[in-house]
Formats: sequence, C-alpha cells, structure tokens
Amino acid sequence: MFEETVTSLAAADTTAGRPPLQTLLSDAHSGVLLFGITPPRQSASPDEVRQIAAVTIARLAPLDVDGLVLYDIDDESDRNLDERPFPYLPTMDPAVFQADYLAGWDRPVVVYRCVGKYPEADLRSWLSEADTHTVLSVFVGASSNQKAVHTGLPKAHALRQEVRPDLLVGGVAITERYVRSRDEHLRIVAKQVQGCAFFISQVIYDVDATKSLVSDYFYACLEQEVAPRPILFTLSVCGSLKTLAFLKWLGVGIPRWLENALRYAPDPLAESYDHCVVAARELSAFCRRLGMPFGFNVESVSIRKVEIEASVALAAQVHALLGRPP
Amino acid sequence: MFEETVTSLAAADTTAGRPPLQTLLSDAHSGVLLFGITPPRQSASPDEVRQIAAVTIARLAPLDVDGLVLYDIDDESDRNLDERPFPYLPTMDPAVFQADYLAGWDRPVVVYRCVGKYPEADLRSWLSEADTHTVLSVFVGASSNQKAVHTGLPKAHALRQEVRPDLLVGGVAITERYVRSRDEHLRIVAKQVQGCAFFISQVIYDVDATKSLVSDYFYACLEQEVAPRPILFTLSVCGSLKTLAFLKWLGVGIPRWLENALRYAPDPLAESYDHCVVAARELSAFCRRLGMPFGFNVESVSIRKVEIEASVALAAQVHALLGRPP
Repeated sequence: MFEETVTSLAAADTTAGRPPLQTLLSDAHSGVLLFGITPPRQSASPDEVRQIAAVTIARLAPLDVDGLVLYDIDDESDRNLDERPFPYLPTMDPAVFQADYLAGWDRPVVVYRCVGKYPEADLRSWLSEADTHTVLSVFVGASSNQKAVHTGLPKAHALRQEVRPDLLVGGVAITERYVRSRDEHLRIVAKQVQGCAFFISQVIYDVDATKSLVSDYFYACLEQEVAPRPILFTLSVCGSLKTLAFLKWLGVGIPRWLENALRYAPDPLAESYDHCVVAARELSAFCRRLGMPFGFNVESVSIRKVEIEASVALAAQVHALLGRPP
Repeated sequence: MFEETVTSLAAADTTAGRPPLQTLLSDAHSGVLLFGITPPRQSASPDEVRQIAAVTIARLAPLDVDGLVLYDIDDESDRNLDERPFPYLPTMDPAVFQADYLAGWDRPVVVYRCVGKYPEADLRSWLSEADTHTVLSVFVGASSNQKAVHTGLPKAHALRQEVRPDLLVGGVAITERYVRSRDEHLRIVAKQVQGCAFFISQVIYDVDATKSLVSDYFYACLEQEVAPRPILFTLSVCGSLKTLAFLKWLGVGIPRWLENALRYAPDPLAESYDHCVVAARELSAFCRRLGMPFGFNVESVSIRKVEIEASVALAAQVHALLGRPP
C-alpha cells in the first residue's frame, strides 16, 4: 500500500505540468515518447499475465514515457511465405490486457487493433466501452490484399466516427510501402481525413527513406492546406543475427551498409543501439528544421531480456535527446 | 615573370612533403582531393582556350588540390530521351586541352577517356605518348549497351596493360547503377582486376546508397582477399532548379527529401552547399570507421560563375575537413 502511494507520487512528480498524451497528440506537439510492447501469449495463465504486467510496469516506471503501446499481433504468414525466424504464438487481445491487467499503469495506453480480425459488432462494443481517458487506439489494415477480413479499415474508421468520435485514433506509417509504391504519404493524408490524429511508424532502420516519406507527407499537407499530424518513429534495437532475420521477415527495410555493419559487428546489440540513437538524432533534427511534429516509440521486437533492457535504456536516451528533464 | 615565380613558390610550399597524386593513389592513401572541370567547347578559338586555361589555373591555385580532373564529354542523348536541360555542346578532347594548354598547371591531371569514342589506334598512340608524371586517366565505358563503340572498355584496359602499364588508370563508380542492379561493387572489383588503381564516383547526392555501395565493395574485397582501392567521391553544388533538372537528366539519384529541400529552399545554392559539406563529413566518417581508402573530387556541373565559385569554396572546405593544413 505504502509502495503504491510512493510510486504514484513519483509518477505525478515527473509529469508535473505535462499534458496527457491525448492532448499532446491532438495539439500536434512534438516530443511525445511511447514505449511499445507485445501482450503476453494467449496460453499464459492469469497469474503469469499479472506477473508480466507487474514486471513491465516496474521496468517502465522510471522512464517518464507519455504512454504505452500495446500491439495486436496478427498471423502475417500470408504476407511472407519465408519461414518465420521466431515461431508465431497467438497473443492476448491487447484490449483485454489493458482493461484487465494494467490498472497499475497510470498513463494512457495506445491499443492497436488489426481491425480485420474483429467482427464489426465486437469492434463496435469495444469502441463504445473504451475509456478515452486511458485508451487511445491505432487501427491497422490487413497485412495483404488476399486476406479475408471481418472489418475493413475504412469501415472501422466510420464506426469510430459514429460510435466514439472522442476516442483518439491513429494510423500506421510504413516507410517500406513508400519505397515500393511512392504513395504512402498520400495514404497518410487520406487516413488523416478519415480521422487519424497521429501516426506510428513501423520499426525504422532506413532513416533516409523515412526522411523522404516525411518530407513528401509534409509538402502534400502544405499543398492540400491541411496541418500535418504527428508521426511517431518506432525504434527497436537488434541484438543478434536472428533478430536481424526477424526484422527482415517483418518487412523492415535495412540499408545494406547498416546490415553489413550489424553482421560484422563484434557486438550487434551495441552497434544497433548506436544506430538507433543516431537515427533519433537525425530524424529529430530533420523534423525540427522542416517544422514537422514528431515523436518516438521505442520497442524491442525480440523478447530476449538483454534486448528489452537495451530498449529501456534507449527510451531513456531518446527522452534526454528530446530535451525533456530526466 | 615575377608573378609566375611567386605562384610556383607558393604552390611548392603548400605541398611540401606531400607525395604526388600517383603515389597517393597507388599506395591507397585516404584524403586525396581533386577538382573536376569540363574542357572548353570545341568551337572556342585557341586564344579563348588559352584564356580559359589561365582563369582556371588562377582560380584553383590557392586550393592545394592533388590534381585536376578533365572530363571527356560524350553525347549521351542515346541514354536519356528526355530533353536535355542544357544543350549538348561538343567539347575539346581533354587530352589535347591537357597537352597543349595546361603547361601552367604544375600538378597531375586525370584525363577521362570515353573509350568508345576513340578508334583503337588513336587510343594506342595517346597511351604511348602520355607523360605519366603529369597524366593519369579514367576509362569510361559506353553510356548504353545500344551504342556503337570504337573501343570497348576491356579492350582499352588490355591496350593500357600492353602499351603503357606504368600509366595509372582508374574507373568510374556509379551509385545509381548499384541501386538499380545491386552488382556495381562486383563491377568495381572486376575493373580493379583489369588494372584500375582507383575509382571516381559520379556526382553524389544519395549518400545513403553510396555508403551501401562502399560497404558492399569493401566486404567483397575482404571475401576475395584483395585490398580495396580508393574511391573518390564527386561532389557538386546545385545552384538552381535548372541545375537540379540537369543533375536528374544526368542520372544522378537525389533522395526525395533532398530534392524537396532544394525545391523549397529560398537559396538552393546555399542549401546544396550545406548538403555537400554534410555528405563529405558523413562519407569521411563512414570510410574511416570501415577502414576504406577514400578521397573527394569537387566539380560544378553548371558553368554559371556563382556555382563555379561555390565549388571552389566547397573544395577548400573539404580540404580542411580532410584534416589537411590550409
């Protein structure tokens, strides 16, 4: 009991005067920092899930992030026929994990929704019940055109407008889709029109292409006379060649020079950590110069403890780099 | 007469102890700095050519570059059917410009040879007569497969080996070909086997892809157990949207963010100058960390005085950045 009080006081102290995530994003502030995690496996017992939640909250408590991101993992085997470097294990519904296990987390949670997984009625009932003080969402479309979906992305946005317009919703921004089709910036503008107030990128290793996506998005907004919405850049360390293979399997574009640097590095985790810091610096400087609102989302795509700990250290360094007091 | 003496003394002083370009390149030293120019138009009178040579030498005298690059301009209209932003004007043979007009220039000259333009006999006689103390060469192949050539690139290299093995010859390194075909690093290794002692890149605006090319080349050398040869990175400012169009016509890959930055810049010349300096810094740091020998070649693709002067200033700044005394 005493410990709980101390924790909340400490948390209140570090955020003194800082508006909540919803306000920061609505007002298109720069400097938002999130931390992303994958919910526990579906096979975990309630006790195990409670323990995972406690460990996670304890690990993130000193970080002063603006919110937590909970991914909604979809079996994307239809998207990539290559063997998955890590096996696909169904994970808990992030909305359930948030509602039933994260009461101890005192900041907002961005709940991802792969909308195609959910029948319209389920999505509707979740939307109507979500607590907008603690929950935001990111709607994600199907991972491929071939996939049968319960609810399409435009329908999901329409539902949100109808049922719960006060729930802040974002979308994903994908550098690799920009590289392939050169229209990702226009897709982002279109999602903004559908109601997205912010965007979270996929894991970024290709900083240069991401700058091009941001630049094209910024100038498309200028042309269409709409204000650009914040993009939060997702950074993840890569602690081993297996994680590198997994990043590539996920579709993360990695410039050859960086892939070579990781492959030949005596310590790939330290090497990738340094590159993430350089990426954060370069993207911050680029966005500031352009006048583009931005922030970061730090995660670990691997569940190895050493990589998770490096992600927490990275989030602390990005926090400092954003000019926020420690 | 007095002025001439002063100039030579000054030049001798600034290069005190520095080996000549041929030695620097043969020994794979890093830090070579060249300045590239296009020879005068064919239609210029001998007096005009003499004057151009004098102006050029005077402009470059304070620079302390290791050598001059003379391009061999080919009508590349077969390569690109789009309208050329600047008209194609036949230029003097760079070998003739070097031999007949550059006696006042006291450092080596790298004479480009678009080998396809020259019948074998012409190339053979030039090779046998070239003064290896003042002349190096870069052999360039045809700009497209469709083009009829007098002498192919492998034949030209074989001729050099036969007629003039002591003439130091380099090749071109093209980032954009790497981006398209992903085998440019292997082409470079193959040219090295044919006798190329160094490489000069095309104008670089895509630093990230160039780092990938260099990295793949470096590790291909490691795998094939050959020592990497120096690559000199060519930098050119871009002072107007017309120059930007010309760079694109030439096939220079420009990342979208940089193209947008130049298009929206109040002063594209200053903007591009800053980007060239950043490129030089980034490529230097990258090559130093990798252990890859490198240098720079600064030129102006435009003949506008303000762009040429900015190129001279850029060369001076790159000189300082290479850690060489002013």
